[in-house]
Amino acid sequence: MQIRIYYEDTDISGYVYHANYLKFCERARSELFFSNGLSPINGEFHFVVRKIIEADFLKSAKFGDLLNIKTTVLEIKGASIILLQQILRENELIFSARIILAHLKNDRVSKMDSKMVEFFKLFQNP
Amino acid sequence: MQIRIYYEDTDISGYVYHANYLKFCERARSELFFSNGLSPINGEFHFVVRKIIEADFLKSAKFGDLLNIKTTVLEIKGASIILLQQILRENELIFSARIILAHLKNDRVSKMDSKMVEFFKLFQNP
Amino acid sequence: MQIRIYYEDTDISGYVYHANYLKFCERARSELFFSNGLSPINGEFHFVVRKIIEADFLKSAKFGDLLNIKTTVLEIKGASIILLQQILRENELIFSARIILAHLKNDRVSKMDSKMVEFFKLFQNP
Amino acid sequence: MQIRIYYEDTDISGYVYHANYLKFCERARSELFFSNGLSPINGEFHFVVRKIIEADFLKSAKFGDLLNIKTTVLEIKGASIILLQQILRENELIFSARIILAHLKNDRVSKMDSKMVEFFKLFQNP
Repeated sequence: MQIRIYYEDTDISGYVYHANYLKFCERARSELFFSNGLSPINGEFHFVVRKIIEADFLKSAKFGDLLNIKTTVLEIKGASIILLQQILRENELIFSARIILAHLKNDRVSKMDSKMVEFFKLFQNP
Repeated sequence: MQIRIYYEDTDISGYVYHANYLKFCERARSELFFSNGLSPINGEFHFVVRKIIEADFLKSAKFGDLLNIKTTVLEIKGASIILLQQILRENELIFSARIILAHLKNDRVSKMDSKMVEFFKLFQNP
Repeated sequence: MQIRIYYEDTDISGYVYHANYLKFCERARSELFFSNGLSPINGEFHFVVRKIIEADFLKSAKFGDLLNIKTTVLEIKGASIILLQQILRENELIFSARIILAHLKNDRVSKMDSKMVEFFKLFQNP
Repeated sequence: MQIRIYYEDTDISGYVYHANYLKFCERARSELFFSNGLSPINGEFHFVVRKIIEADFLKSAKFGDLLNIKTTVLEIKGASIILLQQILRENELIFSARIILAHLKNDRVSKMDSKMVEFFKLFQNP
């Protein structure tokens, strides 16, 4: 998934505001669903970020940059998944995070059904 | 109502990103409700911005600035109100907008009850 | 220019937060420049939103929507331009605004050079 | 430091958008400087978030909530500091993060001067 850096993404430093890299990761997660005809939220369930295990801000992106976001499923548990999300500018890694998402049903952590588990398996590395 | 300008509010120009002045106006509208023990949204109704009649970006606010937001009710109609919202840095006017808010009930434009009308009268200029 | 609505764009109402339509318009303006090998900001000049002449919030966009943004130059003045920006979901108009942009050089309003004027002429309606 | 949750902070889930907790932490960091007559950025230096060591999203804040942000300096190194930032709603911890900030001079990591070190010592726990 590719995104462009606009005015709204930058701050007074001239570079991207740090929390926005997490927004870009969320966009990429949503696009995983959309590109498979699914949605990350519906009347029954949605996902929340439960934990950022670690996030590294390696380089600064700037206005006009085109960034690519790569999402890998590291682990699938019953009611949560662990993702590695990496943001690259061409071949340069500028941001990397490991994130735990929890699956909620009616606002309570809840086991994913087998269809959802199969979906996430698509993004596991061999 | 007073707000501080943080990193998140600025962009690469070094000043506040233009759309954020509208966020500040919304904060001030919400505080009108909160400061009177009310909420601008509940299970029954909420308000939406229906129209910006005009918005003037007169001066640029910058990181660290303290701004004051002044809200005046210009007109109360059955299902909507017209507001004047002005943002000042000390005595200097930096942003001014006239905005129409519509009152929605179950996502449909709907007449405000008399209690709501009385509430808005508090913010009318004599 | 097409954009997708993500979590970050929505608010508690379930729809897009009103000020974000102005962000989408800014993205579209920046892409006009990028798609022509230019940038809306460089060491010498940049543009600022000087005035929203009028902005109509006609329909509400929601999570997952794909929106198109159409930008038309209505008028080119010496140091500013007037734009019409319309946001559509398929053929339905959901937002429309007329906006005045000012051209700044070293933070002062300044006449655009002929190359910039020619650039904006590309987006004028016949 | 106390902040209020506004429309802009929420998303379609009805709760605060996850990346916004990091914005609130940044506001609190900036206020540490402002409240001591300093600024986190000037022509000579600024700080960047270099790493989120860990961030826990424990509870969800919602529209209208009043949150308190508590910042503790865990460690002061030559050119960086490690902070613990906690967001509370009354006595309930809803977000907690350990963050590494790097001190930059002319966009390069650079040793803090003694005045800056003394400033951060004010926020160390005994």
